[in-house]
Amino acid sequence: MTDNSILNATNIVIFGATGDLAKRKLFPAFYNLFIDGRMPANFNIIALGRSDHDHDYFKNYIKTNLEAFSRKNITSDEWQAFQPHIFYLQHQLDDEDSYRKLNEKLQEFDTDFGMRGNRLFYLSIGPNFVSTISNHIKNTSLASEADKDRIVIEKPFGYNKQTAVELNQLLSQTFEEKQIYRIDHYLGKETVQNILAFRFGNSIFEPLWNNRHIESVQITVAEEVGVETRGGFYEQTGALRDMVQNHLLQILCMVAMEAPASLESDEIRDRKVDVLKAIRRIPATRVDHYAVRGQYGEGIINGEKQKAYRQEEGIAPDSNTETFVAVKFYLDNERWQNVPFYVRTGKKMKEKHSYITVQFRPLPHSTFSDSSSLLSANRLIINIQPSMDIRLQFMTKKQGLSMLLKPVEMVFDYFACKEDTPEAYETLLLDAIIGDLTLFMRSDQVEEAWDVVTTIQEDWENKKASFPNYKAGSWGPEESFTLVERQGHGWV
Amino acid sequence: MTDNSILNATNIVIFGATGDLAKRKLFPAFYNLFIDGRMPANFNIIALGRSDHDHDYFKNYIKTNLEAFSRKNITSDEWQAFQPHIFYLQHQLDDEDSYRKLNEKLQEFDTDFGMRGNRLFYLSIGPNFVSTISNHIKNTSLASEADKDRIVIEKPFGYNKQTAVELNQLLSQTFEEKQIYRIDHYLGKETVQNILAFRFGNSIFEPLWNNRHIESVQITVAEEVGVETRGGFYEQTGALRDMVQNHLLQILCMVAMEAPASLESDEIRDRKVDVLKAIRRIPATRVDHYAVRGQYGEGIINGEKQKAYRQEEGIAPDSNTETFVAVKFYLDNERWQNVPFYVRTGKKMKEKHSYITVQFRPLPHSTFSDSSSLLSANRLIINIQPSMDIRLQFMTKKQGLSMLLKPVEMVFDYFACKEDTPEAYETLLLDAIIGDLTLFMRSDQVEEAWDVVTTIQEDWENKKASFPNYKAGSWGPEESFTLVERQGHGWV
Repeated sequence: MTDNSILNATNIVIFGATGDLAKRKLFPAFYNLFIDGRMPANFNIIALGRSDHDHDYFKNYIKTNLEAFSRKNITSDEWQAFQPHIFYLQHQLDDEDSYRKLNEKLQEFDTDFGMRGNRLFYLSIGPNFVSTISNHIKNTSLASEADKDRIVIEKPFGYNKQTAVELNQLLSQTFEEKQIYRIDHYLGKETVQNILAFRFGNSIFEPLWNNRHIESVQITVAEEVGVETRGGFYEQTGALRDMVQNHLLQILCMVAMEAPASLESDEIRDRKVDVLKAIRRIPATRVDHYAVRGQYGEGIINGEKQKAYRQEEGIAPDSNTETFVAVKFYLDNERWQNVPFYVRTGKKMKEKHSYITVQFRPLPHSTFSDSSSLLSANRLIINIQPSMDIRLQFMTKKQGLSMLLKPVEMVFDYFACKEDTPEAYETLLLDAIIGDLTLFMRSDQVEEAWDVVTTIQEDWENKKASFPNYKAGSWGPEESFTLVERQGHGWV
Repeated sequence: MTDNSILNATNIVIFGATGDLAKRKLFPAFYNLFIDGRMPANFNIIALGRSDHDHDYFKNYIKTNLEAFSRKNITSDEWQAFQPHIFYLQHQLDDEDSYRKLNEKLQEFDTDFGMRGNRLFYLSIGPNFVSTISNHIKNTSLASEADKDRIVIEKPFGYNKQTAVELNQLLSQTFEEKQIYRIDHYLGKETVQNILAFRFGNSIFEPLWNNRHIESVQITVAEEVGVETRGGFYEQTGALRDMVQNHLLQILCMVAMEAPASLESDEIRDRKVDVLKAIRRIPATRVDHYAVRGQYGEGIINGEKQKAYRQEEGIAPDSNTETFVAVKFYLDNERWQNVPFYVRTGKKMKEKHSYITVQFRPLPHSTFSDSSSLLSANRLIINIQPSMDIRLQFMTKKQGLSMLLKPVEMVFDYFACKEDTPEAYETLLLDAIIGDLTLFMRSDQVEEAWDVVTTIQEDWENKKASFPNYKAGSWGPEESFTLVERQGHGWV
């Protein structure tokens, strides 16, 4: 538990403060951190937006949204304590004058603090504006103190490896690497963070965690939603960029990484980069063998008829954008040689479910000769969301008078602990305030992750797919099943 | 599932059929097997007793007891189907004429069967009568067919190694080893049998199951009861003979044995004997260092005042008999070198609880430096009775904003399966009927187990203990705790 009294006074500047993310995630996160006593004793949230709102109007808008989206209830006393920390400032992203005015405001707050406070710039805006904002911050010296000033950037970090390298170069003109917090909110989830604790806080799993004992690993991030209002954005992005390059590869890193010597942020990020480097690049000529793409057609989810992707707003009627991806990766290192890592993600799937399945090898020899078909049932399932639990499947004696086996499972359920689970954004924002980079993506992580998917990206851009190829409400195209069945496996 | 239609017609002869065991365990077991369709199509239960009961009186007595002790309810139809299989026969254990009459009766039944049926002689009598009965059976050729006739003997199998060897020699004059079923009812318990399934039906536990990963093993069989009406018997026996030599060493064998190549009964019994042979014999001069004995004094259990052992009926006021034993064993083999196996058992303990604790080693290096004290929390607990479950204790991330660990557990509960669990005696009696010796003790097992405790027996017989040394309702004498604490361990 961090003692918030030792935290420097901090000015938090939100670009895009009237947008969806700020409304649903950022303000609720700051509010909950505040209620929990985790915010610095002195802090301000400077909300930037294009419109000319007055403070009271904006605060009221925030309060209404907190009531809708905050994890904790809003009490009048707590709101009265929180609201003086919010300031609305009209701001034009491409107008350098706006940045000068912001600087004056920040200096005013510093005077109140009695010190130069830390500055946290949160870019809750589209990727096209990153360079504009970064340049203006540089020109107006808004983030001139490398030890105090930080920038938080939402994905996507570029569009492919080339643009990611360019974006990193651009940011490096204004910020040192240690000032840059590239958010992948999946890494803030309790269940994902727990992978580290589970693997390296116990002595009994690590001896099994290698190719001698593990047969395959599966990572599924299935969404029930479609593109919703994000059609325009999604049409240019697709599932490979939107999910695989970041969330799925990051989870894969957590599952596959070597033990870090400590929890020091660069130590952990080094071990993750090691994994990304070890992922065998898929040859350009073999993409079809290792990767499957899909796009949903019409279908039914929970009894409701669903539109096809190509019928959604902002989507081309002959769209080539994938809403589903399955890939088989191999890692070329001592620990994981020959163990397939199957990852898949899709929209409009049968249900929302993110989870990891670690399939252990079958017994080398079965003492129980009559039930050999059941003996590959050793399996660890880490449910990330919406269920948050860890399940160990194993064989036990079937109760009764004969020595027969049956599969059962042990469950550890997070919710059974009756503890409040902080939202991913609370964890990540507090880390950014404190200055802990562990859960954020370093430039080399981002670039390596793009490198991993480059041949797939290029192959798919150059070839028209026969879409749609899966029904809304299914588990994706047939080829996704073939991908794992070829090796005698199956999605679990 | 055995098909009962292929089972030979069987005559079951119970010596001591009016005794406590027959009433509480044997008849209920036969009845439940019958209801479940597991008994042979043709069978009789010939109940032997000293008194001159008529059939109807005896059947009524059985029915009343079934109503009190049967796992399943007694319906009128089922009782009517079961009761014709019961025959009461007046019998004098030391009168050869009684055995001749029994033989006539058995031949009569064989005639009804249309074949020489199997014969199962169940000795539910004190150990002093074993040789008498065995000799008469020999003289009257009651068990002349080695492939069809079996004898079931209750513990104690002798009083020490010497008498066990003598008893085995005596039995071998009448029976081949394969005809002798030495019952240890602990081996019939589902939770004990499941140790085999758990260890050898899964690929994930066996790699951890050795001295590289396991720090210590604990086996506790705690009873809340005292000697009850068995004072006279118990005073001559004590906990070492009554519990350690059989139940606790048998459980130790299940935990420590090498993987059997098959479930063939001699294969499994060979692997168990291997364990008993590997147990390092405690030097006569070092018994105090490895073994602790105790006898309960007065105390309180569940708010009720308890008599001291020496105040119980049939107990000498200066009794030297132990009601509690704790021993530290080592196994001299590749797998278990240097891993202490702590076993303890006692009467009038704080609660009835039989369980096994497998304590895994702490992490070689803790990534989570601030919580090193918690990192030895990897522990597997197999609860045998009264709770029947398997618990895996491990570390997980404490929910919240910091990377702190806390211990949690996964549970697999047998009762959650909603299956009927057969009683140990059902399992064992069916095995004896079928002819499966796996769960019964072979002569060499019994003799080796006596050999393991010989030096302790002799030391304790020769030295007066300072009893009583623990309170009824406690977990035994202080020295039991010292025994494990000397090595930095603790009873879990």
